[in-house]
Amino acid sequence: MATGTLLFISRHRVLPYFSLLLYINLIDCQQFIIPFKAPSDCGVDEFFDISSVSCSRCGSNLSCICQTGYRTLNVFNDKISISCEQCPTDSPAVTQDGFGCIRCPNSLSNEGKCQCLSGYILERDINGNPLKNARCEACSNKSPALSVSNTNGDCERCMSTFTNTSCVCAAPNFQEGGLCFRPGVLSTNVNPSVNYAQLKFSLQSAWFVENLYSSSAACLDYSNLTACQALGNMCVLSMHSITGSSTDACGLFNTVYRSKAALSSVQEIAYRVNLPWLFYGDEPGLASRVLQTDPVPTVFSFRGRNQNTNIQLLAAVYNVRGEFLRWEKVGGSNLQLCPGLAAKQAAAFSFGTAYQESCDLSVADLLDSHPEPLFYDVYMDLGGEENRKLLPLPTLVENQQYNGGFINQSMRNWYLTRRMFLVDTLSGREKSITSSPKVIRVATSVKIFQLVPRNQEGLIFPPLMTLTYTDVLITDISTQTVPITFAMDYEMDQTEAHTKTDTALGILGGLAVLYSLLKTVSWKRRIASPIIDLETMLKFLLFYSGDLANVFFIVTVGTGLYWLIFYKFVSVLLPLPSQEEQFVMYIGCAFALKQAVQFLHKLYMQVSVDIFLIDWERPRSKGNRTVQHGDSKRGPSPVSIWRTYFVANEWNKLQTIRKISPTFQTMAVLFFLEVLNFSNLALRDPWSTLQRSPEAYTPPYSLILRYGLTATLWLCIALLQVIFFTVFYEHFVEDKIRQFVDLCSVSNVSVLLFFNRCFGYYIHGRSVHGHADTNMEEMSNNLKREESLCGQRGLVPNSDIQTFQVSVTNRLRQQYERIQDSLSRRNRPSRLMDASTANLSDLQFRAYNTMNHFLGSVIDHGNPDMDYMVKEKLMLERVIGMEFMEPADKSYFYSEAHSFSNVLFYGNEATLLIFDILFFCVVDLGSQNFVLAAVLTYLQQMIFRFICNTLGRRNLANKTLVDQRFLI
Amino acid sequence: MATGTLLFISRHRVLPYFSLLLYINLIDCQQFIIPFKAPSDCGVDEFFDISSVSCSRCGSNLSCICQTGYRTLNVFNDKISISCEQCPTDSPAVTQDGFGCIRCPNSLSNEGKCQCLSGYILERDINGNPLKNARCEACSNKSPALSVSNTNGDCERCMSTFTNTSCVCAAPNFQEGGLCFRPGVLSTNVNPSVNYAQLKFSLQSAWFVENLYSSSAACLDYSNLTACQALGNMCVLSMHSITGSSTDACGLFNTVYRSKAALSSVQEIAYRVNLPWLFYGDEPGLASRVLQTDPVPTVFSFRGRNQNTNIQLLAAVYNVRGEFLRWEKVGGSNLQLCPGLAAKQAAAFSFGTAYQESCDLSVADLLDSHPEPLFYDVYMDLGGEENRKLLPLPTLVENQQYNGGFINQSMRNWYLTRRMFLVDTLSGREKSITSSPKVIRVATSVKIFQLVPRNQEGLIFPPLMTLTYTDVLITDISTQTVPITFAMDYEMDQTEAHTKTDTALGILGGLAVLYSLLKTVSWKRRIASPIIDLETMLKFLLFYSGDLANVFFIVTVGTGLYWLIFYKFVSVLLPLPSQEEQFVMYIGCAFALKQAVQFLHKLYMQVSVDIFLIDWERPRSKGNRTVQHGDSKRGPSPVSIWRTYFVANEWNKLQTIRKISPTFQTMAVLFFLEVLNFSNLALRDPWSTLQRSPEAYTPPYSLILRYGLTATLWLCIALLQVIFFTVFYEHFVEDKIRQFVDLCSVSNVSVLLFFNRCFGYYIHGRSVHGHADTNMEEMSNNLKREESLCGQRGLVPNSDIQTFQVSVTNRLRQQYERIQDSLSRRNRPSRLMDASTANLSDLQFRAYNTMNHFLGSVIDHGNPDMDYMVKEKLMLERVIGMEFMEPADKSYFYSEAHSFSNVLFYGNEATLLIFDILFFCVVDLGSQNFVLAAVLTYLQQMIFRFICNTLGRRNLANKTLVDQRFLI
Repeated sequence: MATGTLLFISRHRVLPYFSLLLYINLIDCQQFIIPFKAPSDCGVDEFFDISSVSCSRCGSNLSCICQTGYRTLNVFNDKISISCEQCPTDSPAVTQDGFGCIRCPNSLSNEGKCQCLSGYILERDINGNPLKNARCEACSNKSPALSVSNTNGDCERCMSTFTNTSCVCAAPNFQEGGLCFRPGVLSTNVNPSVNYAQLKFSLQSAWFVENLYSSSAACLDYSNLTACQALGNMCVLSMHSITGSSTDACGLFNTVYRSKAALSSVQEIAYRVNLPWLFYGDEPGLASRVLQTDPVPTVFSFRGRNQNTNIQLLAAVYNVRGEFLRWEKVGGSNLQLCPGLAAKQAAAFSFGTAYQESCDLSVADLLDSHPEPLFYDVYMDLGGEENRKLLPLPTLVENQQYNGGFINQSMRNWYLTRRMFLVDTLSGREKSITSSPKVIRVATSVKIFQLVPRNQEGLIFPPLMTLTYTDVLITDISTQTVPITFAMDYEMDQTEAHTKTDTALGILGGLAVLYSLLKTVSWKRRIASPIIDLETMLKFLLFYSGDLANVFFIVTVGTGLYWLIFYKFVSVLLPLPSQEEQFVMYIGCAFALKQAVQFLHKLYMQVSVDIFLIDWERPRSKGNRTVQHGDSKRGPSPVSIWRTYFVANEWNKLQTIRKISPTFQTMAVLFFLEVLNFSNLALRDPWSTLQRSPEAYTPPYSLILRYGLTATLWLCIALLQVIFFTVFYEHFVEDKIRQFVDLCSVSNVSVLLFFNRCFGYYIHGRSVHGHADTNMEEMSNNLKREESLCGQRGLVPNSDIQTFQVSVTNRLRQQYERIQDSLSRRNRPSRLMDASTANLSDLQFRAYNTMNHFLGSVIDHGNPDMDYMVKEKLMLERVIGMEFMEPADKSYFYSEAHSFSNVLFYGNEATLLIFDILFFCVVDLGSQNFVLAAVLTYLQQMIFRFICNTLGRRNLANKTLVDQRFLI
Repeated sequence: MATGTLLFISRHRVLPYFSLLLYINLIDCQQFIIPFKAPSDCGVDEFFDISSVSCSRCGSNLSCICQTGYRTLNVFNDKISISCEQCPTDSPAVTQDGFGCIRCPNSLSNEGKCQCLSGYILERDINGNPLKNARCEACSNKSPALSVSNTNGDCERCMSTFTNTSCVCAAPNFQEGGLCFRPGVLSTNVNPSVNYAQLKFSLQSAWFVENLYSSSAACLDYSNLTACQALGNMCVLSMHSITGSSTDACGLFNTVYRSKAALSSVQEIAYRVNLPWLFYGDEPGLASRVLQTDPVPTVFSFRGRNQNTNIQLLAAVYNVRGEFLRWEKVGGSNLQLCPGLAAKQAAAFSFGTAYQESCDLSVADLLDSHPEPLFYDVYMDLGGEENRKLLPLPTLVENQQYNGGFINQSMRNWYLTRRMFLVDTLSGREKSITSSPKVIRVATSVKIFQLVPRNQEGLIFPPLMTLTYTDVLITDISTQTVPITFAMDYEMDQTEAHTKTDTALGILGGLAVLYSLLKTVSWKRRIASPIIDLETMLKFLLFYSGDLANVFFIVTVGTGLYWLIFYKFVSVLLPLPSQEEQFVMYIGCAFALKQAVQFLHKLYMQVSVDIFLIDWERPRSKGNRTVQHGDSKRGPSPVSIWRTYFVANEWNKLQTIRKISPTFQTMAVLFFLEVLNFSNLALRDPWSTLQRSPEAYTPPYSLILRYGLTATLWLCIALLQVIFFTVFYEHFVEDKIRQFVDLCSVSNVSVLLFFNRCFGYYIHGRSVHGHADTNMEEMSNNLKREESLCGQRGLVPNSDIQTFQVSVTNRLRQQYERIQDSLSRRNRPSRLMDASTANLSDLQFRAYNTMNHFLGSVIDHGNPDMDYMVKEKLMLERVIGMEFMEPADKSYFYSEAHSFSNVLFYGNEATLLIFDILFFCVVDLGSQNFVLAAVLTYLQQMIFRFICNTLGRRNLANKTLVDQRFLI
């Protein structure tokens, strides 16, 4: 009746019934500041007033609890106060409830109460009437009473292990851990110490001392279910480690196991009667048989109707005493010690998501939250409505020792086990179970690892749980922390993918050799040299490295794209980070070959090209044609050089024009990756959403996906840019290449370029009007007339084809070189002079005029032994980039529209683009930072553009004699 | 003795003692798959075998517990099995321990055991010997025995409220909640319903039904400490809401309070005897007196020797029954329901860090983790080694109602309270305390707010805790979630800062008016118009908006930088996000004025500038000077226009050249912000470290800091760029402006620009050699000679000053316009024609020649009535940008180096830079994304450059008659 309400349970506490006569004026009028008091701060004559959180005095002539020998009286009124009365001498003891006085059979305790040696102090009779004399009664422990006193002081039937004859465990039987055992049930020589191998010491564990022998004996002799579990748990606390001795926890477990096995009819079973399943067995190869023979009969699928990505794990939870507590759904915080939002932690159990969460936990928190270890038997829930099936997960303990050695290092020797714990603060207690631990053992790394067979879609092999325990010596709990990791990872057999990649590399590499050979042959013809010398070999290697870089690029982008599509949109699992190394190496190769070799080679070729501007303008014949020839040297006004300056200046500007805008490209890629969050596609989870909630789990990035994504994005944007520029911009806004050709035509200047010794390009710029060096009015008229004469601009009469590839004879080239020689002689002696000043010698001007005249006459078919023929290139010639006709006695002019851009950035867009992509990706793979990659790519572009411009300008000035100051 | 070990507590459970005769072959040989079984799944004749987690049959002729009427026998051997024996008919009942048979005084219970109406079934005597007949004994509740039976069945002294006469609560006294009260102690008319105002219903709470009356009565009558606290807690559970009625929790609390007050001597105190402190009092203005009168006597400091940023809060924790549990240090997870790492959560209590953590918690988790509410009285720990002082934190409950209205809306009416709870799943239980709740109430928002006085360094006013409770109707606990927020924020009085900002704005704004007026006057003079018309007003507004934008820019950058420095490196607190609005508005103004007005205005001015290229080249006098004048028209070869083309083309390219590289600028800013993590400086915490651990708390960004940081960074990098370009690049690599001037000189072409009607720039480009239209040889010689003649280039003989500001007379301008008119006549009628074709009429060429001749003669002083004078500008003229001399009959040429760049991007770098900064910042403030801002800034620059190029080219083509096709 009196226990019906929750409010006033503490019937023995007298504190609440005080009169508070004192007015508690603790309040600072200004700020209500009060002093801090804890219950332990209060003195003997004070009590802790919970309403004012302060210590209050009890009163004048009473302490809060009546003093020894005083019984409590209580007075009912508005202000209850406790009052005490001394017990009379004939009954000097105070009763247990404090309200009565009684006489004791024996002496009094220090608290002034009766004490009995054992049994019960009877102070009231059965009906509750107080007795005069307290009585000590002993329980009758003989049959048939068989009783012992319990905590209430009642006599109760004793435990069944005692009840054979009496409640006394008589020799030869002996008592241990509260049970009575028959002699010889188990050798009493047990070793209750726990070995902390990492700390290189072991200690006598209070828990083991108290329970190891009794659990073993009770399990063996009485088949006590909880005792067997408790024994198993002690073996788990020893990290399943087996020493030679049979006196430690796992040794005893095995002893009991073997003795039970003798009784059992079948040998090969995991469970023994009542014993927990701790070991899988020690045959070699068992691990791979268990882990890789049959897939789990559950199908995972990322998408579609049968979508199933939920990995359901269940754990049977036991406490350290061996009692079964409950079934727990694994998820949330039960295996994950790191705190986190439920939504984040749940991501661990989503199939295909590489999950890893780490944190440092304070030892103080661990001690608080884990006073006792819990033990988990983890199963995978295979589902099934009525007949739910469970698959036990094998566990691999990294620290497990077998006869002193760590056996779980290579998979062949793996010794699989079952049952785990997270935090053990119990076995490190040395003196008693309630003392504070000297060492704690924490499962610092819990990794669940799933192997996925390649060819069976959505199936997995039984997952493996890998545990690493760490022993932490307690020194300063307030500052010590323990790093904790929980991870879930997946591995798919990648040999097939590797084979495919290697095959592709092999085939394409072979093709690259062929193609490079072809290029080398073509080059040999173009330089008109038949000898295979060191230079040829070098050139071949240069070509080959470029082609090989392309092969690597194609293969890596293909692989990256494959994983991106198949992982994010189909059900395939990514390679592990450790398996990505080869891939990164390929990218590195591609980049190194591209940069160190091909790109620099192309750059060198571009800035060292032979160029000459042929001015077709001839001095005007004056009105007075009768002037003598001798006078003509002074007579006709000189042909203005300004058209040549104009053309040279424009050519200079053309050098670093590209088909796309590289800065826009970088910005656009950055925009997609960082602003539209395309970067989320590179996360190691199978979802293809771009927006992630900040509360959701963010898995780490996959290098392969990052590369595939970046390269693809870069290529797509570049493609769009190329389409925009070629289809729209160059048609409707401006086309620099065409403009230049037009300019040549209008300015009456032709351009001859030699890319190789005997191969080059020619832009025919002879004005249809004969003169271009004229005033504005005439220019305007010319331009007007040009509209109708456009078709006449071409080299061949009545054609408009102005740009050619030229393949010249050796003779022509020699003649060219001879003139060129004196033209650029200046370069050699004038090294020390200021190159920018116009120190051109007369010789050079003469050479310039000679060259002008010579080339003009060649183009004009004025030189019969250096004649040429205009041809169309064959389709095949175009494809393989080689001319079939050798220019033996005639040069060949192949009409190829705008192919001269090959000596500019414009014509090498593919190389530059791939170089940019590789540069961006290599920086990104190294730094995992898209912004840094973009900034560095921009800088790289800027630097190379500057170099190319500077060197190209110098080259142009040297070759055409146009002063650098006009190239602005 | 038998209780010494923890292992075998469950003495009454017989399950562990079974013999498992059956071999449990549950294992699938392949995969060890087992069926899922929970203890509840096992049938009546099965038990749950915890070692194999399966249900096992007990055996053939026994169930796991002996059937009714059977007593248990146990047999000791290796395979213990339970066996049962039917009780004889003379003692048909089974004893409580299950091992004996006994005869009952009354009838048998369904379980086959004895039953008594009350009291104790005595089955053994005091010494433990079993009795034949069980006995029911009643406790004697009369004095002096005063005993009632307890849960063990012993008779024990009853509670003190009963013990006046007997343990029966006799009328007129009455029993309530386990206590016996005197009649009339309190009206029994209490209202135990809880009102859920948000859900618009109230329910009878089982907890209130059971405890409200008894707590109130016990508190009032017996001054029971825990009862008083429990009553207070019920008022807290009602969110401190006070209705008119005195029958609800807070009403009863106040009733008790008042009746206690009558007994107390002092009136104005917060604590009453034994009652918890719940209310501060209801006088108006008390809140501001409590919160803003005196600062807390603790000094916080971010840096230096006295660094102290740790806000220490302590909470006295009570349970719902009113028991004091402990003192708890606030921090970690006690007020923060959202899970998180300790290091992250601790950031909340670091002074100056704006902390806010939100999450959605599942209702199921809340129900699990909070079976009962805990109550917190929060104090601030003021430290002090021995005499630790505490400052109670006032609490403001947003939902608190007073007579039906929400009172805590405006600070004047704030009704401060104390004591809070986080989750209440108890008062929503309707039928019984153990039923599941219909509604739960959660403190969804806990905000601690600290007001910091401005002038007292490091002091704070008492912090205020603001609570918002949310009522959640339980519908589906597995999916329901509750959003939770915990925040800590600081506010400093910002009026002083506001005043300063406003003052600065006012003063600078006034100066801006003056400066704009000056500009307008200057402009009026330059267009030679004395009338103040609408256009003048408009122009003034244009100037003014630009200057005002600059003022806003200076003030905002100054403010941003101030906060950045003082918050991050000195101890000052940031304005709250809500106080940043004005600042953002200023930035918006600056941007709008800058973009919409000044920038577009400058752009327009640039692309509509009047430009003419004066060609000094005259046809060469031929060797035969005797040719008649009539012939001269055809005779001399025409002066080549190509030099003019060259100059025009270069001018066209100059238009969008800038002093800095804008793309590099953007990239560099991005690099600093995103790669070097300067963006972390804009976080709302007082730390100035760039690298943050991912485990640390990341506070939100401050808009002011973001702006200050970005603008400063941008300005610094721009400054570095300007220094690099002016000091290094333009000296050692190339200086486009100087190159252009040189080009003019070499090409014998002068440039005259009219920026305003009568004001412009002149670049004197007359070649020192007389002729520039010549061949390469002569050009080379000219260049060579030029080195020594450089000093002769200038307009004034023997000077090298080539660039001038010109202020021309009205007459000259009129003449210019007259020629210009026919020059550009084409524009008007030819709108419909293709503007790009060279449809220039003869008239235009004549005009061109006239203009060329006219301007040439003016420069040559060949026109006496349009003569000019070369002057140096005065210092003051330069500073205020206005000429003092009005060009009445003479024009003035002021020699100002390269000032013509004012009509180019190059000369307006400041405007462009500020525009870029504002653009970047506005995008960033809107999107909080630096990458997006960078990308858009780049696009913006690209677009404006394209527009300016296109329009500028068209303007140039129109004004100089140079065909657009040569401007490439």
